[in-house]
Amino acid sequence: MTMPLKMLESFMDKRISLLLKDNRILEGKLVGYDDYMNMVLEDTEERTEEMTRKLGTVILRGNNVVRMSLIG
Amino acid sequence: MTMPLKMLESFMDKRISLLLKDNRILEGKLVGYDDYMNMVLEDTEERTEEMTRKLGTVILRGNNVVRMSLIG
Amino acid sequence: MTMPLKMLESFMDKRISLLLKDNRILEGKLVGYDDYMNMVLEDTEERTEEMTRKLGTVILRGNNVVRMSLIG
Amino acid sequence: MTMPLKMLESFMDKRISLLLKDNRILEGKLVGYDDYMNMVLEDTEERTEEMTRKLGTVILRGNNVVRMSLIG
Amino acid sequence: MTMPLKMLESFMDKRISLLLKDNRILEGKLVGYDDYMNMVLEDTEERTEEMTRKLGTVILRGNNVVRMSLIG
Amino acid sequence: MTMPLKMLESFMDKRISLLLKDNRILEGKLVGYDDYMNMVLEDTEERTEEMTRKLGTVILRGNNVVRMSLIG
Amino acid sequence: MTMPLKMLESFMDKRISLLLKDNRILEGKLVGYDDYMNMVLEDTEERTEEMTRKLGTVILRGNNVVRMSLIG
Repeated sequence: MTMPLKMLESFMDKRISLLLKDNRILEGKLVGYDDYMNMVLEDTEERTEEMTRKLGTVILRGNNVVRMSLIG
Repeated sequence: MTMPLKMLESFMDKRISLLLKDNRILEGKLVGYDDYMNMVLEDTEERTEEMTRKLGTVILRGNNVVRMSLIG
Repeated sequence: MTMPLKMLESFMDKRISLLLKDNRILEGKLVGYDDYMNMVLEDTEERTEEMTRKLGTVILRGNNVVRMSLIG
Repeated sequence: MTMPLKMLESFMDKRISLLLKDNRILEGKLVGYDDYMNMVLEDTEERTEEMTRKLGTVILRGNNVVRMSLIG
Repeated sequence: MTMPLKMLESFMDKRISLLLKDNRILEGKLVGYDDYMNMVLEDTEERTEEMTRKLGTVILRGNNVVRMSLIG
Repeated sequence: MTMPLKMLESFMDKRISLLLKDNRILEGKLVGYDDYMNMVLEDTEERTEEMTRKLGTVILRGNNVVRMSLIG
Repeated sequence: MTMPLKMLESFMDKRISLLLKDNRILEGKLVGYDDYMNMVLEDTEERTEEMTRKLGTVILRGNNVVRMSLIG
């Protein structure tokens, strides 16, 4: 059994892809998170259907997240 | 009486199909979950009306899930 | 006075119809539930405006349910 | 001062009309409820803009309810 | 400082107008409420863009309310 | 560090502008609030894209508020 | 590990960009926040697809926030 927060811990310092509820994708290096799955990403790139944007360090509210996965 | 979390336990290490609130389908092997029905899937495939995508290991937030069922 | 969870108990092992928030209908035999009205259905059939699908055993998140009723 | 749950108690065994968040109307005899305003209705009739349907006994999740009133 | 629940108390036995999240307006005499701002209205009139309807005594779930004000 | 509720206190007895989730703007004198950011406004004016309306004293549910700022 | 609230602390007195759930962008100097990620911004500028507006000091409800990042 791999608990979700345990798996999130294993994503630390790796680049991950996050799908948000509004269909936005955030990709960045996971450098922190809390029990609500609020997260801190570095070197973040944001993609929607219309555009791609570099955002640097981002704090993300966990309740907007649908799924998280490793990149590459 | 089969409690929902008990049934989820019986899904462990099997491939399941998840319907999300935005109509997205995730299929993968269930390798973990917690009391909020956050889940960890492996060898995950994601399907929307427009596309199919391989995602590998995925952490899923439970509050986006509508229903879960076994595949095959 | 018939408490809602008491009524749900009386639905056990009977086929019920569930209306979900996204207008989806699930019909199946109720084999379990918890205090959040998460449910386990067997021999489940899912219907939307576009299609009907057999799903077998389904775990359903209670917060997506609008109403439940007996079939037939 | 008439507390809302006290008023709901006075609706017991009477036919009431419920407006749900998705604009659906349920009409039936109120035979039970709990503190979350989950309810049990008997001889329930459901109406949307497109159709009317008889549902018999219905368990209704309180968080979908907008307003309740007596019929007739 | 006038606390919101204190102000609501001052609305008792007066006709008030309620805006709901779905843009519906309910007007009626406030005869009760609880800490969740569930309310009981008498001689209630409901207005949407398409119609006006008399509803009599209404129980209203507080989480659907946007704003309340006195009439006239 | 200025805590949000401390800043709200400094808005007391001043005219403020509130943006609600449905894009509605309420402008009025803040005369009270509670820990949930429910608020009481006086001499309130409401604006949507279609209209402007005078509402007098208004009780506002905090969970509909997006942002608050001083006017003028 | 950089906890999200710790990172937010490091944003204090710097200009940040906030994406809200309705796609609105708020840019301003962060001068305060609480555990719910309610925030106080100064010299705030608001941007939607249609317009840009100066708002001065703004109190923002945390549950409307999607992501936060430093500007420049």
